[in-house]
Amino acid sequence: MDHLLAEAPGRSLAYHAGRHASLQWRAFVAALARTLYDNAEDGDADAFLREVGTNMARALPLPQVATLEELEAAMNAKWADLDWGWVRLREGTGDVGIVHGATPTGFAEDTGGTWGRASVPLLEGLYTEWFAAQQGPSHLAVSLVGERAEPLHLRYGR
Amino acid sequence: MDHLLAEAPGRSLAYHAGRHASLQWRAFVAALARTLYDNAEDGDADAFLREVGTNMARALPLPQVATLEELEAAMNAKWADLDWGWVRLREGTGDVGIVHGATPTGFAEDTGGTWGRASVPLLEGLYTEWFAAQQGPSHLAVSLVGERAEPLHLRYGR
Amino acid sequence: MDHLLAEAPGRSLAYHAGRHASLQWRAFVAALARTLYDNAEDGDADAFLREVGTNMARALPLPQVATLEELEAAMNAKWADLDWGWVRLREGTGDVGIVHGATPTGFAEDTGGTWGRASVPLLEGLYTEWFAAQQGPSHLAVSLVGERAEPLHLRYGR
Amino acid sequence: MDHLLAEAPGRSLAYHAGRHASLQWRAFVAALARTLYDNAEDGDADAFLREVGTNMARALPLPQVATLEELEAAMNAKWADLDWGWVRLREGTGDVGIVHGATPTGFAEDTGGTWGRASVPLLEGLYTEWFAAQQGPSHLAVSLVGERAEPLHLRYGR
Repeated sequence: MDHLLAEAPGRSLAYHAGRHASLQWRAFVAALARTLYDNAEDGDADAFLREVGTNMARALPLPQVATLEELEAAMNAKWADLDWGWVRLREGTGDVGIVHGATPTGFAEDTGGTWGRASVPLLEGLYTEWFAAQQGPSHLAVSLVGERAEPLHLRYGR
Repeated sequence: MDHLLAEAPGRSLAYHAGRHASLQWRAFVAALARTLYDNAEDGDADAFLREVGTNMARALPLPQVATLEELEAAMNAKWADLDWGWVRLREGTGDVGIVHGATPTGFAEDTGGTWGRASVPLLEGLYTEWFAAQQGPSHLAVSLVGERAEPLHLRYGR
Repeated sequence: MDHLLAEAPGRSLAYHAGRHASLQWRAFVAALARTLYDNAEDGDADAFLREVGTNMARALPLPQVATLEELEAAMNAKWADLDWGWVRLREGTGDVGIVHGATPTGFAEDTGGTWGRASVPLLEGLYTEWFAAQQGPSHLAVSLVGERAEPLHLRYGR
Repeated sequence: MDHLLAEAPGRSLAYHAGRHASLQWRAFVAALARTLYDNAEDGDADAFLREVGTNMARALPLPQVATLEELEAAMNAKWADLDWGWVRLREGTGDVGIVHGATPTGFAEDTGGTWGRASVPLLEGLYTEWFAAQQGPSHLAVSLVGERAEPLHLRYGR
């Protein structure tokens, strides 16, 4: 049984991750992402999704906070309400590192992973707006660091 | 108490309808619909949503059936899996009447009702593809009858 | 189509009601109620469920409020968090009328309706504790008025 | 950021586990377990929960299968329907090892972990009945191996 017990955390994580996105919306979200990238240039689809993220952030306003710790807590409170995972923030040199895990992606209906891809510009737009609403207009934006992975590694900076 | 008891069915229906759409996706779906209609001509947004519906239908294929009753049952089985409400079909003169109730719309996050509006071309595309997959290519399509209401009244015909 | 449209509100209400209780717990809750009433005298099972209700109320404490309207609002806020339906309160002559609708009962797994029956003493215990926590210890209690129905009609009084 | 990325799998597993049990039933299930163990001797409470498990298993009948692999698959299909986690079976010497992960326990409302404790006799009764329904009456039963842990390690044997 030792093997079964040792592999259990990975099995449980995969179990939860594959069921995390509400069944009610998986088919819609997967079809939406596929239709979007089939119809538009990749850059246009990404830009559209960033704007959806901006609008989501405006519909989910955060309180004004004083510290990065409070900002992380405010973001996690919103994510907990929606069940969209968790975030950690870390001050860098001239930027802020963002690690976002347990996004509702990775379900079987998303054949090809198009929604997984779409979630990146969506979250870029959303976090950019959340930071902008704290700090006022700037030239800073949130963008992916490296390749898309679970968790996502993003940064807010130039 | 008679008044409280008499109003109870309407109150329960409103209670359920407002909570039917999974909380996880309400903010996303509302932001998506708003961004879509803000960025595209109405006709283009509708056409895009019809194509999302077509792709949803292809990801939710129905078995080949022999009668309209069986088709209604097959559609309701898919809707029950997804929790997207219920449908009734009725043979008309040269067309098929479609009544679809309890769509996951009408939640508070959808200020302005843009997702409610978006759900019409989505379901038009979806039902058109479901009928086409049964009957082969044709010039028939599903379209809304009259104004958008709950339940939706659609027809499959010329 | 007129018939289909006329029957739609009843159909939607039945659709929602049958799916309201989370699928994750329906089999457990139905088996629990059946086992409980199979093993204990009815009065003992009811008394046990009233105590479960008391413990639920203590785990869901309401703020101290000044009016019956505020109490109704505080109760509805808890019910909304849990998705256990809605309540209306109405001052009577020496008692308070309670109408509770959209309880998570009435699902297909509850063959025989034993959970539906069990929900009455559960809610009696729960509301009794919620009133007692507002008003201090008393000899008043919440009990069903008439037969069990949807919505439930309860009263808080002697 | 390396630290944040390294801790992410554990963070995601904790995130999912804490939210796995439907919010609708957490308060009820926690109050039920607490009331049960407060009112009955531990042995009686365990016996009652085993019988609830037996009744759950009868309401969730498995098809007759020929191999342990097929039995594991049939059990996992039921657990997937209910979202009660996953199971692995392993033939032992005169017994069958059972590893069950991602049970809907471990939520914040279950202060004291009484529901977590209650889930053990519940699953013992449930698996015992599932095995008995395959193999006919016997003196074999499912029982916990060692201490309660996540995942649970059970065995079916003498």
